[in-house]
Amino acid sequence: MSRTESSAQTFRAIDVIRKKRDGCELSRVEIESLVNAYTNGDIPDYQVSAWLMAVVLRGMTRGETAALTDAMLHSGEVLDLSALRARKVDKHSTGGVGDKTSLVLAPLAAAAGVAVPMISGRGLGHTGGTLDKLESIPGFNVNLSVEDFRRVLETCGCAMIGQTAQIAPADRKLYALRDVTGTVESPYLICASIMSKKLAEGIDALVLDVKTGSGAFMKSEKDAAFLAELMVETGERMGKKMVALITDMDQPLGNMIGNSLEVVECVEVLRGGGPEDLRELCHELAAWMLLLGGASTSITEGRQKSADLVSSGRALETFRRMIELQGGDPKVIDDPKRLPQAQRSVPVKSESTGFISSMQCEQIGTACVILGGGRERKEDSVDPAVGIVLHKKVGDPVTQGEPLATIYYNGDDRASRAAQLIGDSIAILEATPAAKRPLIHRVIQNSGEKN
Amino acid sequence: MSRTESSAQTFRAIDVIRKKRDGCELSRVEIESLVNAYTNGDIPDYQVSAWLMAVVLRGMTRGETAALTDAMLHSGEVLDLSALRARKVDKHSTGGVGDKTSLVLAPLAAAAGVAVPMISGRGLGHTGGTLDKLESIPGFNVNLSVEDFRRVLETCGCAMIGQTAQIAPADRKLYALRDVTGTVESPYLICASIMSKKLAEGIDALVLDVKTGSGAFMKSEKDAAFLAELMVETGERMGKKMVALITDMDQPLGNMIGNSLEVVECVEVLRGGGPEDLRELCHELAAWMLLLGGASTSITEGRQKSADLVSSGRALETFRRMIELQGGDPKVIDDPKRLPQAQRSVPVKSESTGFISSMQCEQIGTACVILGGGRERKEDSVDPAVGIVLHKKVGDPVTQGEPLATIYYNGDDRASRAAQLIGDSIAILEATPAAKRPLIHRVIQNSGEKN
Repeated sequence: MSRTESSAQTFRAIDVIRKKRDGCELSRVEIESLVNAYTNGDIPDYQVSAWLMAVVLRGMTRGETAALTDAMLHSGEVLDLSALRARKVDKHSTGGVGDKTSLVLAPLAAAAGVAVPMISGRGLGHTGGTLDKLESIPGFNVNLSVEDFRRVLETCGCAMIGQTAQIAPADRKLYALRDVTGTVESPYLICASIMSKKLAEGIDALVLDVKTGSGAFMKSEKDAAFLAELMVETGERMGKKMVALITDMDQPLGNMIGNSLEVVECVEVLRGGGPEDLRELCHELAAWMLLLGGASTSITEGRQKSADLVSSGRALETFRRMIELQGGDPKVIDDPKRLPQAQRSVPVKSESTGFISSMQCEQIGTACVILGGGRERKEDSVDPAVGIVLHKKVGDPVTQGEPLATIYYNGDDRASRAAQLIGDSIAILEATPAAKRPLIHRVIQNSGEKN
Repeated sequence: MSRTESSAQTFRAIDVIRKKRDGCELSRVEIESLVNAYTNGDIPDYQVSAWLMAVVLRGMTRGETAALTDAMLHSGEVLDLSALRARKVDKHSTGGVGDKTSLVLAPLAAAAGVAVPMISGRGLGHTGGTLDKLESIPGFNVNLSVEDFRRVLETCGCAMIGQTAQIAPADRKLYALRDVTGTVESPYLICASIMSKKLAEGIDALVLDVKTGSGAFMKSEKDAAFLAELMVETGERMGKKMVALITDMDQPLGNMIGNSLEVVECVEVLRGGGPEDLRELCHELAAWMLLLGGASTSITEGRQKSADLVSSGRALETFRRMIELQGGDPKVIDDPKRLPQAQRSVPVKSESTGFISSMQCEQIGTACVILGGGRERKEDSVDPAVGIVLHKKVGDPVTQGEPLATIYYNGDDRASRAAQLIGDSIAILEATPAAKRPLIHRVIQNSGEKN
């Protein structure tokens, strides 16, 4: 008699709900039975939503979180990339505004000899999504078959696709239920959702970029660090090398927000230019990917290698090859005008003189959604051409009438609403600016902290 | 625009779920909107079960509990008994083993001039139900129309029926969901469920008998008192006179357990006999019903009146009339053999000599279910003839071989299982017994305590 048969005979959803309700620790078999029964349609939504709410309010132990992640991971296909000689490393971000590092990191780490099998998501709410950015490149196909994904990965060292129906089906079903039952906001459930999908990529190591600040899902650093630590420990329990960087999302990352625009900015970084914050974060994350992927022996060496791969042009070349292999137009790299262009633009001018003291980062992301560059609901389509270019970041001086940002748009009424929101979300004070927030708040590894 | 229209426009179940999840107090309109939307089928089970779990773990304020009770009460029909001149008073017990006071109290209070419109339930699990006991009387109809219920009530002062589909439909739907989602065990939800049904009877006052001990739903006195206080305050907020007695259910009440047998014991009490504990509790509860119903000016006077109505035979006469008016055979009062009789009986003998130190009361109730006298699931039918007669109660001396109880049964294998369970649940010690638990632990009234 197999383990599954044994647990199926004794499993009653009501017992598992009551046990979690009363604050007790669930066994691995109980969690596995619940997830399997739900994925197979053997227990109803109303029992699982009661259980989810009990998890939100009672929490989970590290063991329970790992068991949930494992059960969700094994609810579907797990890629077997063991034939690839290189170590497989991915990076996952909890999402933000202007957060475009994936497009830089995949080719950068691949150029260093690390394999990057990256399965990404779409933008939702105020945050952008890697797939939407990639799809602004004419012809780029994010819906590769597993065979084609493997082939691109083998050929150029990285490949970037969307989630398939075969990967972690339990997560898809659970997430849809969480979305309508007020049970999204639990670090344990967030951890299991992210980690089950990422581990299905067949990776050896994972670098987490956990955002904190006004544009992040986790507004406080404490919450971000808790989630980061949880994901690091969960990954390590499952035999993966893990690190999490808590990074700043109190203002947009880089200067450009919007799908085509973000591709342009990524190419700039891969050419050695681009805004300082984006460039710095990309090299820091790349250094960790190289270290965990065995392509360097220290973070310092990783940073140097990363810089070298940019200055030599090898990282950009890898990006060009990946675009080509995934059916996209590689000429966008040399001629950004081949990317979708908005019909009009308008500046958002400063109404006063002083220093930028803060930005309501989430509102700037929402302004991009209003322009059509993001989506309120999953079903919405996205306009790749529109977006926002920031000319000022926190701490910068500004004079009255000077442009704070430029809006690229395709619809008049949308532009004025977005301009209003952007203007309202940027605070200007006369006083000289306070100390800047660090870009990288903490590094969490090995269930502890470094840096 | 009516209040309902207004709330329907702004109501989103997810907001109410999140608010309760985060420990905030819900408004009356939010609770009303949720209950109405669920009763009308406008929101799905999975949202309501998540909300119920949040209520179980976050609790409710007194205002929320009253609002929930009110919304559930008004989800259906509320009887209008204002044409009756007498004050309408009911008694509700949270249920136990051998708890048969309703059959004594309804005619007793009615004989004193109080109107008792009693809507009762069936037995479930180890606890018995008033309807099952009444139905052991040949011909007794517990499914009267509202018109017939009113006519019986007007004619003899009391009437006893089952819940109709028109009364508190929200409770029926919510209870079915709670039963399968681990959300039964919340004093706030229990309070709203009980009070919404009881207040639908159109009563002026309610006497609550909240049981505590090994045979009760609330095992600890603390939990029982909390629920009692909650129900008293909820009733008072809704303009009802309320009292709650916390009474003992650490051993069965009276000596007889089983439907026909309990009718026999009630007739004994109405004749002035019967076991002391049952007699005492009936007179105490009756005294409170009389006081709240305006038929006496003090508890002492109520006790005296209650005793007088028994010794004069008027209480028994009222019971006889009610049985007749509800289609039952009134001759069972003088000839208990007209009630269903079990085919066989067997004693449970003591294996040692000493004193009865305790009883696992719930197990004795379960023994009656095994005999067929109760039900595991709602759909099960009940054998009215079977049951248990206890010959010993806690504190009584016993010698080896002396019968502790007699089992009345209709199936061999069931009797031996029941006998085993009863034997195991009665503890006998050599030492002289400790002080007896009081029958009435506390009286809770006016959001405070008396006695």
